[in-house]
Amino acid sequence: MRLSTLSIGDELLCGEQLDSNACHIAGRVYDAGSRVLRHLTVGDDEESIVLALRELASTSEAVIVTGGLGPTPDDLTTAAASRAAGSELELSSEALAHLSSFAARISGGLHPANRRQALLPKAASLIPNPLGTACGFTLELSGCRLFFLPGVPAEMKRMLEDTVLPALAGREKGGGVRVTLKIFGISEAAAAARLEGCLPFGSPVELAYCVKFPEIQLILRCQAEHAGRLTAAAVAVRERLGAYIFAQNDETMDSVLCSLFKSSGLSLALAESCTGGMIAARITGQPGCSAYFLEGAVTYSNQAKTRLLQVPAELIEAKGAVSLEVARAMAIGARRAAGSDLALSVTGIAGPDGGTPDKPVGTVFLALADSFGCRVHSYSFPGDRSEVRSITCFTALDLLRRHLLALHGASSRD
Amino acid sequence: MRLSTLSIGDELLCGEQLDSNACHIAGRVYDAGSRVLRHLTVGDDEESIVLALRELASTSEAVIVTGGLGPTPDDLTTAAASRAAGSELELSSEALAHLSSFAARISGGLHPANRRQALLPKAASLIPNPLGTACGFTLELSGCRLFFLPGVPAEMKRMLEDTVLPALAGREKGGGVRVTLKIFGISEAAAAARLEGCLPFGSPVELAYCVKFPEIQLILRCQAEHAGRLTAAAVAVRERLGAYIFAQNDETMDSVLCSLFKSSGLSLALAESCTGGMIAARITGQPGCSAYFLEGAVTYSNQAKTRLLQVPAELIEAKGAVSLEVARAMAIGARRAAGSDLALSVTGIAGPDGGTPDKPVGTVFLALADSFGCRVHSYSFPGDRSEVRSITCFTALDLLRRHLLALHGASSRD
Repeated sequence: MRLSTLSIGDELLCGEQLDSNACHIAGRVYDAGSRVLRHLTVGDDEESIVLALRELASTSEAVIVTGGLGPTPDDLTTAAASRAAGSELELSSEALAHLSSFAARISGGLHPANRRQALLPKAASLIPNPLGTACGFTLELSGCRLFFLPGVPAEMKRMLEDTVLPALAGREKGGGVRVTLKIFGISEAAAAARLEGCLPFGSPVELAYCVKFPEIQLILRCQAEHAGRLTAAAVAVRERLGAYIFAQNDETMDSVLCSLFKSSGLSLALAESCTGGMIAARITGQPGCSAYFLEGAVTYSNQAKTRLLQVPAELIEAKGAVSLEVARAMAIGARRAAGSDLALSVTGIAGPDGGTPDKPVGTVFLALADSFGCRVHSYSFPGDRSEVRSITCFTALDLLRRHLLALHGASSRD
Repeated sequence: MRLSTLSIGDELLCGEQLDSNACHIAGRVYDAGSRVLRHLTVGDDEESIVLALRELASTSEAVIVTGGLGPTPDDLTTAAASRAAGSELELSSEALAHLSSFAARISGGLHPANRRQALLPKAASLIPNPLGTACGFTLELSGCRLFFLPGVPAEMKRMLEDTVLPALAGREKGGGVRVTLKIFGISEAAAAARLEGCLPFGSPVELAYCVKFPEIQLILRCQAEHAGRLTAAAVAVRERLGAYIFAQNDETMDSVLCSLFKSSGLSLALAESCTGGMIAARITGQPGCSAYFLEGAVTYSNQAKTRLLQVPAELIEAKGAVSLEVARAMAIGARRAAGSDLALSVTGIAGPDGGTPDKPVGTVFLALADSFGCRVHSYSFPGDRSEVRSITCFTALDLLRRHLLALHGASSRD
């Protein structure tokens, strides 16, 4: 099916708001077996919207439109739809009933301005919005089916799932499938070199790279009829990239690590200096993390390192707070204090200040202590404060993942 | 000037990559005094790119194109530009020199595939790319100036600043200005009600709302010739929204709080349960935070609350870990342990499990201790685990901000 999307809003064309709606719709349309052929964005200008609707309707079988359905004067989508389709606006009793029942549920009731949202083109059918006041609708124009949804992401997503995708499903033949493999610890160029010749010439499977710092996503996609080839391609990619692949599809580094911890039965404590709580925040983002995560110490001051983790003040004095020795002492101290199976510590120089010729900005030490001892890893990361912190955090999570994977491998071999 | 943007890439139309380039360009174009009139996205398909270029060239005076300039076979933008403009591809010696000098700087040298990137339309002029191999170029088509930039954000941004914006500046008359006011703690509807009639009828200043959960951004924009009206409008909005406005333009909650702490001379300790380090991570994201931030404790287990913060085990037993009393004890304990001026604690139920009829998911207590005592605030936040954690974190930062503002106000009145 020839499908297009149209986003409406000055905030998009002034660079004030990222168009996450267009991306979400494109992904869900692809999952549903179709593909967005072109996407267009225009501002809050009635003439531009009318033109865009006519243009897209003349080249598409369906158009999904978002934005401009709110109660304020700059919401012009409904008026433009009415003009484009030559269908007058009238008060929709169905829409008014929705607005009234919605008003009854929220404190303060409905603002008079919201009444404007019940004016729909005569020829339109309402698309219910269970989460907000904006009324969606659908309309036919030059043989093309137009779907109008609000720009508020939560409302748009719900209406897309409840109404739009099911309506499109009936029209769709075939479909697309994809596998996303998420990798870390290898550059895009190095990964590409490893994958050279991995897909046979003329394969129906497409391979795309998406850099989402600090991870890289490899996307394999093809038509559903070739799903077997997709599976084979994913196996081939897995063989070449091994443990660089940390997650697949909806999995994330955090969710994978959470599963590994749960099945390992091991507990964890953290001691963070330059990441300042970022690692703990990611770990505790996972439901059920209390099964293995005991505590974290954000030891920014040297006194905190000494008092909370028993890092000797003389050691900090002698080697510096950012040193292999202090990283080790932090991990061992955190493990002892918390009584955990594992403890991970991080100390580093995130910048912009604090770098020295010996230890420039980006110098980071990660230490992992367990019952066998403690291993320290040193890094020299590029980037600014925010990038150094992000990649340090991701590297720490990956270190834990690889540690648990190795234990798992060892126990499977027993 | 009639200016459009075109993004090229299957990953955008399959929903795998957010189009942050289009948003960035739109923002910079606006800052430079123009405005993107329409934005179009098409996939990696030569025919579609040719059509899109012709279409945009016929309605625009300038088009900024991103993506499809890489070395791989799915990079088709240059070939499409050559067809659209009827200008044959030829090996550009200038581009080849760039590629060779770039190769000399990176380990491993240039891949043979990169040679393809030196093929440019005869009529094109090179746009230098100091950060990567992709060669940008500019070309005239039906009287419209086309700029071709790579899709890699860092490279695109640099080339936009160095070459494209200066080239457009010569053509631009007038310009746009804007002020962004960031608010928190008030709903969009309530803010809109407060601002009713704030801008006089017929004002050249536009007012737009951007919801960026959990904050709301109010954007005031107008043509540069009315800059005085913009300033007046911002003053009027500030009067009506007062302390709900936490930041302006490039400022963030984090940067504002950092400045307030630095000028207050007060030190801070944190004790986090349900936010698990998120607050500490935001505080430590600011350069120079070590001037006031001493330490944070992520006390996920009850034992950690008792050992690190001296919260009596009997109190946790009697009142529950998520309670007003435990929040208070955590803040007082954290302040005493760290020896800080201020200590903030948070305990809550982020979900999905752990809720009870008495204390449903979203129940959160924040406590702030200082030398005068400790004040506890209780909340009932909507949303899932991630939303509850985000809004809790933001509320905690805002609580600190308002506390320091009040102190500042008190000391200014002295």
